[in-house]
Amino acid sequence: MRKPKKLLNNPIDVCREQLEGLIAACGGSLQKIDGISAVVRAGLRDEQVLVLTGGGSGHEPMFAGYVGDGLADAAALGDIFTSPAPNVIMDTVKSANRGKGALFIYGNYAGDNMNFDIAAELLEEEGIPTRTVRVNDDMASAPAHRMQDRRGVAGDMMVLKIAGAAGRHSRELDEVYRLAAKANDNTRTIGVALSPCSLPQTGEFNFDIPEDEFELGMGIHGEPGVRRQKMVPADQLVTELVDSLYGDLALATGDEICLLVNNLGASTYSELLIANRKVHQLLAERGIRIHDTLIGSYCTSQEMSGYSITFFKLDDELKSLYDAPCHSFAWRK
Amino acid sequence: MRKPKKLLNNPIDVCREQLEGLIAACGGSLQKIDGISAVVRAGLRDEQVLVLTGGGSGHEPMFAGYVGDGLADAAALGDIFTSPAPNVIMDTVKSANRGKGALFIYGNYAGDNMNFDIAAELLEEEGIPTRTVRVNDDMASAPAHRMQDRRGVAGDMMVLKIAGAAGRHSRELDEVYRLAAKANDNTRTIGVALSPCSLPQTGEFNFDIPEDEFELGMGIHGEPGVRRQKMVPADQLVTELVDSLYGDLALATGDEICLLVNNLGASTYSELLIANRKVHQLLAERGIRIHDTLIGSYCTSQEMSGYSITFFKLDDELKSLYDAPCHSFAWRK
Repeated sequence: MRKPKKLLNNPIDVCREQLEGLIAACGGSLQKIDGISAVVRAGLRDEQVLVLTGGGSGHEPMFAGYVGDGLADAAALGDIFTSPAPNVIMDTVKSANRGKGALFIYGNYAGDNMNFDIAAELLEEEGIPTRTVRVNDDMASAPAHRMQDRRGVAGDMMVLKIAGAAGRHSRELDEVYRLAAKANDNTRTIGVALSPCSLPQTGEFNFDIPEDEFELGMGIHGEPGVRRQKMVPADQLVTELVDSLYGDLALATGDEICLLVNNLGASTYSELLIANRKVHQLLAERGIRIHDTLIGSYCTSQEMSGYSITFFKLDDELKSLYDAPCHSFAWRK
Repeated sequence: MRKPKKLLNNPIDVCREQLEGLIAACGGSLQKIDGISAVVRAGLRDEQVLVLTGGGSGHEPMFAGYVGDGLADAAALGDIFTSPAPNVIMDTVKSANRGKGALFIYGNYAGDNMNFDIAAELLEEEGIPTRTVRVNDDMASAPAHRMQDRRGVAGDMMVLKIAGAAGRHSRELDEVYRLAAKANDNTRTIGVALSPCSLPQTGEFNFDIPEDEFELGMGIHGEPGVRRQKMVPADQLVTELVDSLYGDLALATGDEICLLVNNLGASTYSELLIANRKVHQLLAERGIRIHDTLIGSYCTSQEMSGYSITFFKLDDELKSLYDAPCHSFAWRK
């Protein structure tokens, strides 16, 4: 079986070294928090709600790449595909806290839920209020009547965008929470994987997909998807993905969305652009307006080949916040 | 042998469909030129020098992704890894011409040189003056005493940035040419490949690289590089790449550069960020300032795994032009 092939140093240093590389790229706008695997953006204001994100590493540029002006204020990072520990989350908040509490925004995974909840409880005891939005945009991970079981994937960035913009205007934790929760409610993602990902520590692929098949709905850590099937033309697949997203979001003629075609790692721009073409065609036929289109590597799964498509449904309030400027490693607007 | 695996429709439609997808993503800021594979940006001014780029497809987001405000004004596109035909180049210029001539900026390849030169000659006969900068940043492709034989790779984007910014201020073809030529003189790139690329039309990899080796200096169409060798730690490789770039550009303490760590396709962000960390460390030790750092997929070679590193040496004039805003699919500043 084929082995992963990467230019690394000692695999146990990947998370530390890549974070140093990210911080170096940001020219002072992103700062390491001493002693823990966490970053905070420069320019935090007094009396602002802290928008905190985080989760396992391995999805670069998520999460640290979304820490910046108009996006997340700080990120607590775990090892590859591993939640940050409660003390890392707590220390990140205490280091960056500006007296108005913290909004936690992270993907809905058991390990993250547990560790962020423990941190939240301990912070409350210290007088720092928190609220939590567990992003659950991955519609392939559970049916619509079990929304609480859906995982968070690329849609994290939409929720961070809205929360970051809201945090520029409001100093009220509940208000920033309300808007972030609405953004999450309005976001759906579905993905397909063509090839596996690997953990640098193991040097082995986590699983295998036959050469003539793809997997619909695979998770960004390689969680099983909805089904495997033989390869089909891109337009046929994209039509199915759009149908699913359209239905799950209950879109109707006249609705407006932002679109993300996200590279899970090793797909070519050709594939992403061809998918985008079909999404635009299908939505135009249905009278859905596309306010903004993002295409590229926004939430990856190491060297996995495949992509995900995210719809973020707008209303006037969300659109205004989406259009606000932002500036981080992964997103400049 | 492993086969390429991609989500496409009919492979012969890749170029057309991906261009439609790119234009759809740009929301009106990028326009197709009727009847040919070429794009022009919205908002061209009267009496401006036309900055024209182009070349073979397959390197997305290059070239069309760099057509936008403050970058290239138009791009003439060939099939995958194939130069645009002279008539496509001519028609692009005639469609976008604003009466001040055209500056051609493209990678130094025999096919492109021939076709752009033919177009230039025919345009001159029609009274449209042209100048040409053949980007030759790939220092692995020929030794320093044969600069004219070096190929153009990711460094194209630095030259387009400077020309696009210059074209906002100057209406003189010779002046925009002078600045673009200086940008090219100040740009060097070197790359490494870990795995092959494929042509969608053939459905086969162009070559193979043994599982435990990489190739230093491979071209973005799979042209042979300087040598193959066993995998080494990333820091060791990056040190060699930086030494090469440093020497070839004759950098000295106090110099200032912009840095691009470019994904050739399938490399992970982990690898790019770890490379970036080492470049920053090495240049800090040598007293070289890094004015800006770009990391991501800017000039790809389909699904090739590997990356290139570009140094763009600044002076006051180039720095001011580099810092000007720009807005295209692939680069927003």
